[in-house]
Amino acid sequence: MVFGVAARMGGMLLPSRLAERITYADGALCAVLDEALVCHVGVVVDGEPHVLPTMHCRVEDRLYLHASTASRMGLAARSAPMRVCVTVSILDGLVLARSAFHHSLNYRSVVIHADAALVRDDEEKARVLAAFVERAGAGRSDQCRGPNARELAATAVLAVPLTGDGVDTAVKARTGPPVDDEADLALPHWAGVVPVQLVAAAPRPDGDGPVPSGLAPTLAHLDRPAPRDAS
Amino acid sequence: MVFGVAARMGGMLLPSRLAERITYADGALCAVLDEALVCHVGVVVDGEPHVLPTMHCRVEDRLYLHASTASRMGLAARSAPMRVCVTVSILDGLVLARSAFHHSLNYRSVVIHADAALVRDDEEKARVLAAFVERAGAGRSDQCRGPNARELAATAVLAVPLTGDGVDTAVKARTGPPVDDEADLALPHWAGVVPVQLVAAAPRPDGDGPVPSGLAPTLAHLDRPAPRDAS
Repeated sequence: MVFGVAARMGGMLLPSRLAERITYADGALCAVLDEALVCHVGVVVDGEPHVLPTMHCRVEDRLYLHASTASRMGLAARSAPMRVCVTVSILDGLVLARSAFHHSLNYRSVVIHADAALVRDDEEKARVLAAFVERAGAGRSDQCRGPNARELAATAVLAVPLTGDGVDTAVKARTGPPVDDEADLALPHWAGVVPVQLVAAAPRPDGDGPVPSGLAPTLAHLDRPAPRDAS
Repeated sequence: MVFGVAARMGGMLLPSRLAERITYADGALCAVLDEALVCHVGVVVDGEPHVLPTMHCRVEDRLYLHASTASRMGLAARSAPMRVCVTVSILDGLVLARSAFHHSLNYRSVVIHADAALVRDDEEKARVLAAFVERAGAGRSDQCRGPNARELAATAVLAVPLTGDGVDTAVKARTGPPVDDEADLALPHWAGVVPVQLVAAAPRPDGDGPVPSGLAPTLAHLDRPAPRDAS
């Protein structure tokens, strides 16, 4: 039906439909995780589904999440590994077909089912937290004050393995133009793709000093004049 | 800690932390739902969390989802209402503070806990499917071939109530510049916000004919020259 992506993405929930869209490739998986800045974490609490948007950070074959140690997620992870479904999706375009039914979305997505475990090793925790800051820009972790003991203690870092026993990952994508029924091709309706992209605008400084280069490197940048105090 | 948004967004999962960030307002809730093109739907299957990215569409006080009737979601919704957590998040900026700990994200988000029920009324179903197509552009449902009986039968539409018994909704947002510790303000590190936005680029036609006006009206548009065959 309209925006047939739902039918296709329905297969993402449990990969039963349109299996030909499912690819398993570490490179593709990492590329989606590294481009997206936000993931959606699903957990079950008292039998109810909960979905939390949060930032993630991949280091090698682990995806990391972080939370306040006093948050429910931080507390829950203390006792035992927590079963999670982490879903990352990047919207690439609106697909307008000649029929309502074949309207769709272009996207790339990753779904990970795994056990998230609290990171108890201080060195790993420090490395991961630096990697989180680096997502804002290469070198950023050296361009700000690092965490002190109080801040470290207030932060829970959770590791989600991307490989191994009990881990399921799926990468999916739709790309390209609309796919219309043969009989609809002669219809006079406009068809095509409207590409969409998450882009960064000129930074808004809070204070003085030159704007660091390489901010938000995973984003495209709007071609706008930089603020006057930019370097 | 770094990207403190995790600590703040941790409260979104179950609103226990930083409750002052939680606001309940129908207007704000609808604005987030209407701007975002994709939501993340959480369900519990055999005790496991599953998170599915899909398109949504709000009509009055209901949020609608759609799926193939043959998909697991479509099949699951046939027998009984299905408990869902629908989460919508819009990323508005990267917040770079003088300390790693106060790095954050600007965002707006909605979390809805409710029972999703299959829409069995044909008139409601047709109205909703037209509304889905309109999300690509005002008037679009009249500018394409409408669904035929086969296509209608192949599509399940689910309604998620936004008000009433058993429904919980929460709207949250972070806006504005970084909030640094007083003691950090004198540090030489650059601080500020990098605004981000989902924007549409020039449409890529699949065939001839003038590009309709008003495509993807909820998106900002990149100031790029339109393709030569555009009107």
